[in-house]
Amino acid sequence: MKVGIVGLGYWGPNLVRNFQADNEIEKVIGCDKEPERLNYIKLRFPNVELMDSFDNLLLSDVDAVAIATPVNTHYKFAKRVLEAGKHVWVEKPFTSNSAQARDLIELAGKKDLKVFVDHTFLYAGAVKKIKEIVESGELGDIIYFDSVRINLGLFQHDVNVIWDLVPHDLAIMNYVLKDKTPVAVTANGIANYYDQENIAHISIHFKSEDCFAHFHVNWTSPVKIRRMILVGTKKMLVYDDMENSEKIKVYDCGIEMLSSKEKIRKALVQYRIGDMYSPKVIQTEALALGVKEFVSAIKEGRQPLTNGHDGLEVVRILEASDKSIKNRGCLIELEEKEIIKPAVKTFEREDFIKKIRIMSNGL
Amino acid sequence: MKVGIVGLGYWGPNLVRNFQADNEIEKVIGCDKEPERLNYIKLRFPNVELMDSFDNLLLSDVDAVAIATPVNTHYKFAKRVLEAGKHVWVEKPFTSNSAQARDLIELAGKKDLKVFVDHTFLYAGAVKKIKEIVESGELGDIIYFDSVRINLGLFQHDVNVIWDLVPHDLAIMNYVLKDKTPVAVTANGIANYYDQENIAHISIHFKSEDCFAHFHVNWTSPVKIRRMILVGTKKMLVYDDMENSEKIKVYDCGIEMLSSKEKIRKALVQYRIGDMYSPKVIQTEALALGVKEFVSAIKEGRQPLTNGHDGLEVVRILEASDKSIKNRGCLIELEEKEIIKPAVKTFEREDFIKKIRIMSNGL
Amino acid sequence: MKVGIVGLGYWGPNLVRNFQADNEIEKVIGCDKEPERLNYIKLRFPNVELMDSFDNLLLSDVDAVAIATPVNTHYKFAKRVLEAGKHVWVEKPFTSNSAQARDLIELAGKKDLKVFVDHTFLYAGAVKKIKEIVESGELGDIIYFDSVRINLGLFQHDVNVIWDLVPHDLAIMNYVLKDKTPVAVTANGIANYYDQENIAHISIHFKSEDCFAHFHVNWTSPVKIRRMILVGTKKMLVYDDMENSEKIKVYDCGIEMLSSKEKIRKALVQYRIGDMYSPKVIQTEALALGVKEFVSAIKEGRQPLTNGHDGLEVVRILEASDKSIKNRGCLIELEEKEIIKPAVKTFEREDFIKKIRIMSNGL
Amino acid sequence: MKVGIVGLGYWGPNLVRNFQADNEIEKVIGCDKEPERLNYIKLRFPNVELMDSFDNLLLSDVDAVAIATPVNTHYKFAKRVLEAGKHVWVEKPFTSNSAQARDLIELAGKKDLKVFVDHTFLYAGAVKKIKEIVESGELGDIIYFDSVRINLGLFQHDVNVIWDLVPHDLAIMNYVLKDKTPVAVTANGIANYYDQENIAHISIHFKSEDCFAHFHVNWTSPVKIRRMILVGTKKMLVYDDMENSEKIKVYDCGIEMLSSKEKIRKALVQYRIGDMYSPKVIQTEALALGVKEFVSAIKEGRQPLTNGHDGLEVVRILEASDKSIKNRGCLIELEEKEIIKPAVKTFEREDFIKKIRIMSNGL
Repeated sequence: MKVGIVGLGYWGPNLVRNFQADNEIEKVIGCDKEPERLNYIKLRFPNVELMDSFDNLLLSDVDAVAIATPVNTHYKFAKRVLEAGKHVWVEKPFTSNSAQARDLIELAGKKDLKVFVDHTFLYAGAVKKIKEIVESGELGDIIYFDSVRINLGLFQHDVNVIWDLVPHDLAIMNYVLKDKTPVAVTANGIANYYDQENIAHISIHFKSEDCFAHFHVNWTSPVKIRRMILVGTKKMLVYDDMENSEKIKVYDCGIEMLSSKEKIRKALVQYRIGDMYSPKVIQTEALALGVKEFVSAIKEGRQPLTNGHDGLEVVRILEASDKSIKNRGCLIELEEKEIIKPAVKTFEREDFIKKIRIMSNGL
Repeated sequence: MKVGIVGLGYWGPNLVRNFQADNEIEKVIGCDKEPERLNYIKLRFPNVELMDSFDNLLLSDVDAVAIATPVNTHYKFAKRVLEAGKHVWVEKPFTSNSAQARDLIELAGKKDLKVFVDHTFLYAGAVKKIKEIVESGELGDIIYFDSVRINLGLFQHDVNVIWDLVPHDLAIMNYVLKDKTPVAVTANGIANYYDQENIAHISIHFKSEDCFAHFHVNWTSPVKIRRMILVGTKKMLVYDDMENSEKIKVYDCGIEMLSSKEKIRKALVQYRIGDMYSPKVIQTEALALGVKEFVSAIKEGRQPLTNGHDGLEVVRILEASDKSIKNRGCLIELEEKEIIKPAVKTFEREDFIKKIRIMSNGL
Repeated sequence: MKVGIVGLGYWGPNLVRNFQADNEIEKVIGCDKEPERLNYIKLRFPNVELMDSFDNLLLSDVDAVAIATPVNTHYKFAKRVLEAGKHVWVEKPFTSNSAQARDLIELAGKKDLKVFVDHTFLYAGAVKKIKEIVESGELGDIIYFDSVRINLGLFQHDVNVIWDLVPHDLAIMNYVLKDKTPVAVTANGIANYYDQENIAHISIHFKSEDCFAHFHVNWTSPVKIRRMILVGTKKMLVYDDMENSEKIKVYDCGIEMLSSKEKIRKALVQYRIGDMYSPKVIQTEALALGVKEFVSAIKEGRQPLTNGHDGLEVVRILEASDKSIKNRGCLIELEEKEIIKPAVKTFEREDFIKKIRIMSNGL
Repeated sequence: MKVGIVGLGYWGPNLVRNFQADNEIEKVIGCDKEPERLNYIKLRFPNVELMDSFDNLLLSDVDAVAIATPVNTHYKFAKRVLEAGKHVWVEKPFTSNSAQARDLIELAGKKDLKVFVDHTFLYAGAVKKIKEIVESGELGDIIYFDSVRINLGLFQHDVNVIWDLVPHDLAIMNYVLKDKTPVAVTANGIANYYDQENIAHISIHFKSEDCFAHFHVNWTSPVKIRRMILVGTKKMLVYDDMENSEKIKVYDCGIEMLSSKEKIRKALVQYRIGDMYSPKVIQTEALALGVKEFVSAIKEGRQPLTNGHDGLEVVRILEASDKSIKNRGCLIELEEKEIIKPAVKTFEREDFIKKIRIMSNGL
């Protein structure tokens, strides 16, 4: 398989490196308008072919194109890739709005092409392990999902902190809580420096009213925190991505209702604390596994784990969050989860998890 | 001075211990309906006089009464204390609603009595130090105040997690950011176990639109976090109350706007990272200093640092937060900060800080 | 049972509090020459009888006496207690040298009295749990025991840091590794301020040459560390006493020899890393359980868990360490573990562990 | 300048990368007997010339050769490099014994060639900063140097944990405490798996008897710790290399003697605790700065910061430590620090620090 990569700025070189390292990829073509970026790649990856014209890239024999350009150009580039009959890999967030996302999904469906949205974290060992633990039922039903992703971060000039950082966390939430349906969003925050918000707090309400989620993203924190807390009816889990080891901790603790109503002065609810354990997590680079999944999905004629629909689900919440934060936290309802019928057979998640595990063991 | 303490449950014994240890207090009378609580105090503090009747306590020669009963009884008890011509100490939150708070302030004003609201944290060495740092201007203007107070906590049967935990953090915010005026509140969260919310996220908007605050309180977190982040235009501060030492860290880091507009591909904002320092913090028990301030205020005929107005300011935000969380995050506007004219000369904050420092050095 | 407590300085008040709180103790008599210390106790524990004469205490009807005086007076006081026909509780370290320890053990044996040495940590939930884990065989054979106990500590004027701090760690080592026999000791360190060493590093060699232990004690460290590492042939354990929760972590990791000799460029040894877990630890105050054990041992006519022999074993290593540090790390061999035949039936450790567990559950 | 690199195993590729990235280096030749290693480099660094014969490398036009082969071959290869009239870079530890080190220093002196010993940590921003702080006198006189470098490490088949890990820490100690003279060494530890010790504790005594150092190195610890504590007479410093930020903390705390002798029951020594600060540390890769120093020293005809003498000083202590650990901690005295008169002008440390700072600012 041959792959083109458009946009060789901050993230593009990582795509170049990982596509080039994959056994199934014979050729990688890098594409950027700026000579300085082409030169940067040339020095580090002498085997990569380089082009300064997107038109020429589409005329080449690549089977797929990865898009790592600014968000507001994703749609434009991805559409042309699909129209040229090639599969497409799009960096997160998928598109600037949900209409664009729907359009791309439909177009890919018609042309029987694959859309891969790079929700990289879903290929990280830690998230894979959390998914396994949640699906095993060990935590019970999830009633709270809390995510904090803050540090002194690189300000983006074209999008706010919501579009920049929350896609990671929303993708993880949608993946791990796949049977929960978000129905409404509120977001609050502030834009201290220019018109893009640099701090945001997003709350998500679900169809089943016994679950709640919150996301804190922030470009202006002196401390770097990347932590998720999942509270289940049986156990609780903390995922701290800043830890070198012990990224995941599962706490055998929970809340229990007391049936007796007589103890009027005491709480009617008590908690239980037991052992904690921290499962071993696979260290393989997430992006390398993402590339593998993209290639496999194309070869097997199936949807990848992180496909256009997953991209759309994230974009819908981003869109609603943005609308809410512009209206001082006004509640924005989401329409029902849309199913745009896929033209090809659906991806089987369980199979993928097993496959990833096998691949990772071999590494 | 002689003091009565009503309510000898969870917090009352701490009041007994600290009032008894204060040099200025000659007599402490404990009061509770339940014989078991009276017995508990008798065993530990044999010198404390005990009563099972609030009426009798009011008939005694105590100069002041401290109220450590459930929130919804604060108003009832405090009113009778003031009517009996005695000064009153009320645990946080001051009252169940702002009307009650206003009523007590007015009554105390008429009778020239003091109302002390036990926002204990304002007497803690760490908060004192933060106040000093902020007032020195070292951080610049505060543009973000973030507070997290979560753990596997004791559920309250009569109030939700907002009324239970946020008063601490709101009192600190009002103290440290005394020149900022909160104008609107939104709150989101969930009640997973019974009708009281166990998780809440509260956003506060200010009159000057370049400041924003957020509070996360939670009774159902497997990890205990008590951390505040203050972002200033010059420096940033983190207060981690779970640290044994190094509770406060001041980061010489900040965000700077780039004037040049030409670098279109790069961020227009950059950050600077410098040294960090952690100032020494006085260890004296906060409650002991609170007792000293109560006694001094009465003797000097002035308002205490944490008086009824401070209690009212906190209650107003609690009230609005509660209204918002009941309405899925609907924005609740606060009326202008009310000034109920005090009958006696106002407390001078700067003097108090100096005084506390002197007292603490001597310990 | 009635108990006298001699020495009401730094540690004595803790003994007073715990003996007084125990159900089996009817009367507590405090004894100290200094009026100021007697007054201190009087204010806090009005029910405790006070004496300023040790002679009078021995004439009283107490069944046992606890000694919390400076180390070099332990022997003198303990001997008179035993001669007066009373059981004795001695703070750590047991005595100033091993000859004194042997003398007390013999005297108690002749008079059929109990000697309790206050190695308090052996009654702490964490140490209890470590003992259980080691005895279960889960860690395999222990090949390394490492202990660090350092901070900016209170200098003792009469003993060096070895006699002050290592008794805790040696008692834990002897308890947890009861089947290992220490045979030689070296100690290095420095006395920076006066004639007592403030820093010491002690190495212990064992009869079975596949085990090694090291102890770092230090009064002059800016950071406070209290951590033990136990390396077993199967798993490894870390005990961090500064953690609020997760004091113990058991790592399923180990070292494995590779049989193949062909890979000459690669290591012949590889390691394996698996999950980690942190068991729940009982929070009951160790000293309270120590008091219970003392009382039970007397009533049941058996040796307590931490008896004179345990005290002697610790003192022998302290003695050797002190000799070594005075001679720049010269290796000091220990004689074979001495068995002074006890006059009464021996304490059964396994029973005690079970009993402690039952008691703790009820709390 | 042209450089050859011998040994392309674990560390060699890092040398290739850093030499290749340096502006002053025109050509890099890699050399290894094993085709697999040559191939590894070829794929990653297509511009590097490759050779499988060391003889041919010496015949080439390289100005200098870097040696990254097993320790026991350092001397053999380095000698031939010098004999061939080329400058030499040797990985740590410099040689297998001090006689070899002296021989190489002498040979280089005669031929007016430079010997660089790769004590990489001396080029790390954190160590640079510690050096600055110590030299400024801020800490007062250093009385204690404690180093812990432990984790589940890669066992070496040809050397024990002392030769593998302590060179880093000894080099730092010699650099930071350049005016202290080590005079005696004791080492204790154990070899649990084969004939090479996997755990070692090394104590160092100094000429001035008010300083002491200790090193703990360990391949079999479940937790990774890389921490140094420097206790000065004025302040204390902790260097934790596992921290992402805040690697260095300077504590304004110290120990003070009380002059009064009357308080017989109290300690004669007290401690003072003040603020802490954590200076910003330069992030430039240490190895890149090492390469710069090597190239500059050659061009300027001066000794590099980490030259043969520095290598010899470290080897002398390693040699003594090894002798001691083989003899159960027997004290091994070091001869006086040897000065083999350098043939060329000496390196000026202060200049280098300033230079490094200038270089780093530009990055």
